[in-house]
Amino acid sequence: MAKKVVIVGGVAGGASTAARLRRVSEAAEIIMLEKGEHISFANCGLPYHIGEVIENREELLVQTPEAMQARFNIDVRIKHQAVEIDRETKNIKIKNLENGELYTESYDKLVLSSGADPIRPPLPGLDIEEVYTLRNIRDMDLIKNYLDNNRVEHAVVVGGGFIGLEMLENLHHRGLDVSLVELSDQVMRTLDKEMVSMVHNHMRTKGVDLNLSDGIAAVEKENDKKFVVLESGKRIETDLVILSIGVKPKTELAEKAGLEIGVTGGIKVNQYLETSDADIYAIGDAIEVKDFVSKEPSRIPLAGPANKQGRIAANNIMGKKEKYKGTQGTSIAKIFDIVPASTGAAEKDLKAKDFSYQVVHITANNHAGYYPGSQPMMLKLIYQKDEGRILGAQIVGFAGVDKRIDVLSTAIRHEMNIFDLQELELAYSPPFGSAKDPVNMLGFAAGNIYNGLVEPAFWQELAELDPEESILLDIREEIELELGQIDNSLHIPLNSLRDNLDKLDKNKEYITYCAVGLRGYIAARILMQNGFDKVRNLSGGYKLYKAVLDDKNEVIEKEKEAELQSLLTPEDAEMIANLIIENIKNK
Amino acid sequence: MAKKVVIVGGVAGGASTAARLRRVSEAAEIIMLEKGEHISFANCGLPYHIGEVIENREELLVQTPEAMQARFNIDVRIKHQAVEIDRETKNIKIKNLENGELYTESYDKLVLSSGADPIRPPLPGLDIEEVYTLRNIRDMDLIKNYLDNNRVEHAVVVGGGFIGLEMLENLHHRGLDVSLVELSDQVMRTLDKEMVSMVHNHMRTKGVDLNLSDGIAAVEKENDKKFVVLESGKRIETDLVILSIGVKPKTELAEKAGLEIGVTGGIKVNQYLETSDADIYAIGDAIEVKDFVSKEPSRIPLAGPANKQGRIAANNIMGKKEKYKGTQGTSIAKIFDIVPASTGAAEKDLKAKDFSYQVVHITANNHAGYYPGSQPMMLKLIYQKDEGRILGAQIVGFAGVDKRIDVLSTAIRHEMNIFDLQELELAYSPPFGSAKDPVNMLGFAAGNIYNGLVEPAFWQELAELDPEESILLDIREEIELELGQIDNSLHIPLNSLRDNLDKLDKNKEYITYCAVGLRGYIAARILMQNGFDKVRNLSGGYKLYKAVLDDKNEVIEKEKEAELQSLLTPEDAEMIANLIIENIKNK
Repeated sequence: MAKKVVIVGGVAGGASTAARLRRVSEAAEIIMLEKGEHISFANCGLPYHIGEVIENREELLVQTPEAMQARFNIDVRIKHQAVEIDRETKNIKIKNLENGELYTESYDKLVLSSGADPIRPPLPGLDIEEVYTLRNIRDMDLIKNYLDNNRVEHAVVVGGGFIGLEMLENLHHRGLDVSLVELSDQVMRTLDKEMVSMVHNHMRTKGVDLNLSDGIAAVEKENDKKFVVLESGKRIETDLVILSIGVKPKTELAEKAGLEIGVTGGIKVNQYLETSDADIYAIGDAIEVKDFVSKEPSRIPLAGPANKQGRIAANNIMGKKEKYKGTQGTSIAKIFDIVPASTGAAEKDLKAKDFSYQVVHITANNHAGYYPGSQPMMLKLIYQKDEGRILGAQIVGFAGVDKRIDVLSTAIRHEMNIFDLQELELAYSPPFGSAKDPVNMLGFAAGNIYNGLVEPAFWQELAELDPEESILLDIREEIELELGQIDNSLHIPLNSLRDNLDKLDKNKEYITYCAVGLRGYIAARILMQNGFDKVRNLSGGYKLYKAVLDDKNEVIEKEKEAELQSLLTPEDAEMIANLIIENIKNK
Repeated sequence: MAKKVVIVGGVAGGASTAARLRRVSEAAEIIMLEKGEHISFANCGLPYHIGEVIENREELLVQTPEAMQARFNIDVRIKHQAVEIDRETKNIKIKNLENGELYTESYDKLVLSSGADPIRPPLPGLDIEEVYTLRNIRDMDLIKNYLDNNRVEHAVVVGGGFIGLEMLENLHHRGLDVSLVELSDQVMRTLDKEMVSMVHNHMRTKGVDLNLSDGIAAVEKENDKKFVVLESGKRIETDLVILSIGVKPKTELAEKAGLEIGVTGGIKVNQYLETSDADIYAIGDAIEVKDFVSKEPSRIPLAGPANKQGRIAANNIMGKKEKYKGTQGTSIAKIFDIVPASTGAAEKDLKAKDFSYQVVHITANNHAGYYPGSQPMMLKLIYQKDEGRILGAQIVGFAGVDKRIDVLSTAIRHEMNIFDLQELELAYSPPFGSAKDPVNMLGFAAGNIYNGLVEPAFWQELAELDPEESILLDIREEIELELGQIDNSLHIPLNSLRDNLDKLDKNKEYITYCAVGLRGYIAARILMQNGFDKVRNLSGGYKLYKAVLDDKNEVIEKEKEAELQSLLTPEDAEMIANLIIENIKNK
């Protein structure tokens, strides 16, 4: 007999499940319940319609109930809410929200794709009209309507995750002044602090009022004026507040039915996406997943995994057994002109777990430096120290970031190691890449550390160096010093290093650095092979160090000498160009 | 004792070897011989300087002999040619081309990175000044000088490989009228014919005079006029001829020394890049490599592999044993606005070998269709039929092609199968991708075929169909018919198909098609599950069929109705938009 499947939730995961079920089986009876008005809308596009980047609202309505009915023969019921599951009799009680009627549907298999709710902390004043969250079409309409019909000059976005940052950018795009409030000391917690420094600096140069390590305490209204009050006491006058401090999985229905809830608060599922009741599947933002790298339970609410889970649940329901192998959290965002992306584990998470890892930073161009429009990116690779297996990667740049993070995501998914990255044969022609792609370069740099050719030093360690024992050796060209220098550095340009070895003390440690780390590595090799036993090369070079410093000092404008470029060899110029181009971008 | 290494050739592979040798060992004595004037120049950038896309010639000179000497302590000898190897005594005879002097250097290890020469067929008239090849800085200067100082209005490029096409584009960019002459029936032989059809069509709409299946027979000069005469008898009056019909590995030195030459004509090396003499390594365009997919000997002259081989040879010389595992031929080009790319085996090569493979074509957007600027690409996946292992991939599109070919290259390198592609967790946010990336979609489409959910039909087969037995079933919307239709199609829009099954004959075969193959698949599923035993879905849909047809008919301008878009559901509109956007691009 044909199966009867009831799906609770009609957005990313639910709609994917329904469409896949129908493609596999014409005979199945498929009912899809959606509490709201819209199914299968493009939730990741919501901020862009508010920002008028996506002008036509209809573009976001990927599917209408009517089209889904016509094409897939799915019984789509919008404004119908699942209220209770009777697992014993395999029935689900449903409320028609239009007329309040309650009725019951039986099921052979049930799929819970109930999603998550934005967190709204119980703070004073957050119940006023001008405080919004953004999760669905209705939320979007409310915010856009408010913007379209009021004089709105300033907005506060609370929360520096993806949605918060995308909202920030879109409100800025509409011409608003914007403040960001973030409780932790960085935005985008899937990246490590030093990588995000570049994002912070970029946001400041774009005019964002960035409030880190500070939380929202209240919203106050005085006459016509509204203020966001922070925990620090700072008061920000504003016209609009967007709360995007995270989401909470919607698990009420599952809990009431006695389904198991995981340690992270999401609905617990096995690798086939079955809940503790084998006739009930759960997918999407409501569930707890296995972190692909750490193998630990986690909640990673992302559209890509939700869609894939929908398809897998449908296959399992139809007897085509398929496992969901976990989520690695690959993500990317465009924040003004800068693009941060990450996949797999972050260093801070591994550090917290005392995991044995190694880190390497490099800077590379998105395509051949001699082809017009080349732009630099900073890449960070985190790998298992003994085996070299890749655990995580982070990139911040302007163009070509998405390509490299996808190759690295693929590498993590297939448990590749740093030497595998060296061998990848990636597409090269001047407009698209380099003969040695940034991903290859990451593999080379990591392999050199792994094989003991060089030992890295990290920006965090510089503050703790004893100047009596450790010398910071700046091996850049004279002219590059105008870009700044780390305090107390000894300066010997790389090309003179071999001739000046006798001026150095072999009993001391030398930490070499250049602009990005490539020439510093060459310098370290020269020292190591000339009787210096304690040598390290600064990972990420002066550029990364400077980014962290500028972030700490909340630097807004950087001075730069464009003519520096013309005075150097092409090789030096390319490295300095990285800095200059980035600065131009920041303006 | 420190090793003495002599490197013959100072461009991509040779310079990579030298730099890596020095980084590993400060003590080694490294001599690099280069017959020409320039080392380590950006050979892939040459066409772009001729085209004035790269304005500054210096940009192409990545390294000067002086800089290489200063930084890496390499004894660089330009205008020095290796003339003979004495393997017995491990000496190499060298000619100083400036003064004609001959001298000898001993070596512990020798590296041959001698490259390849452009092929110049012995045809009448090819020795006149206006016939050029492009391989090095000197060639580039000659061509650019000729263009800068003469009235040059028309050029003929002979050979439709990467260099030929890049030259064509760059000459066009300078304002020349251009003709291409290619002996085979397609340009870019690493792609299959139907994929290249889109490139042919694009070139024609850009005004290129495309002469396929025709070869150059002679160049004739009459008074002031020059003519390229083709084998067909066609005469093309022109001002400039660029020959880029391929390269021949430079093996004279190796042959004279009795080193083994492979079946393909390249210097034979083992997996450590050692020639038949263990003290002599060879790398780059001069060698025969193992094709990574077919495991057969091959010659694949590409900059990426040459650079990697240089590094590997250096490691092996320094006792850090490392294998070169073969070349898969990943490549990409920008031809006007269109971007063709490929990796691994082409269908035509597998067909010639009677290999058991399967093919799938899909069309997908580079990023979310609702985000501004989304552009379609056609992807082709070729996989081993029984195991599903990926053998090759080809993409033709406008943006985001490089990203997907790199992920697919990585998949081939790690012997992934079609189901692995489904699981890849790639970065998604609206400006960069879709919740289901084109690479995931390729995996889904291939998996559906593999699992028997649908059987594909291919464009080549349509001409041979017996209309009494096979019905072409066009399931597109009414309005899409204005874009054209395959002859003798029966038209039933997808949403009406379930209601019209009784009008179809279950004894006949049905070949379903839509614009790109996605709705055709849904239609095929409906038929298959309603008692129709012979059903196939047209791979690539009407779009691919039309591209091949337009190519065959040498269509230059396509008619299109932009307002088509507004009359359809967003889902239909997106698919039709693919066609329309492509056409706009072509104009």
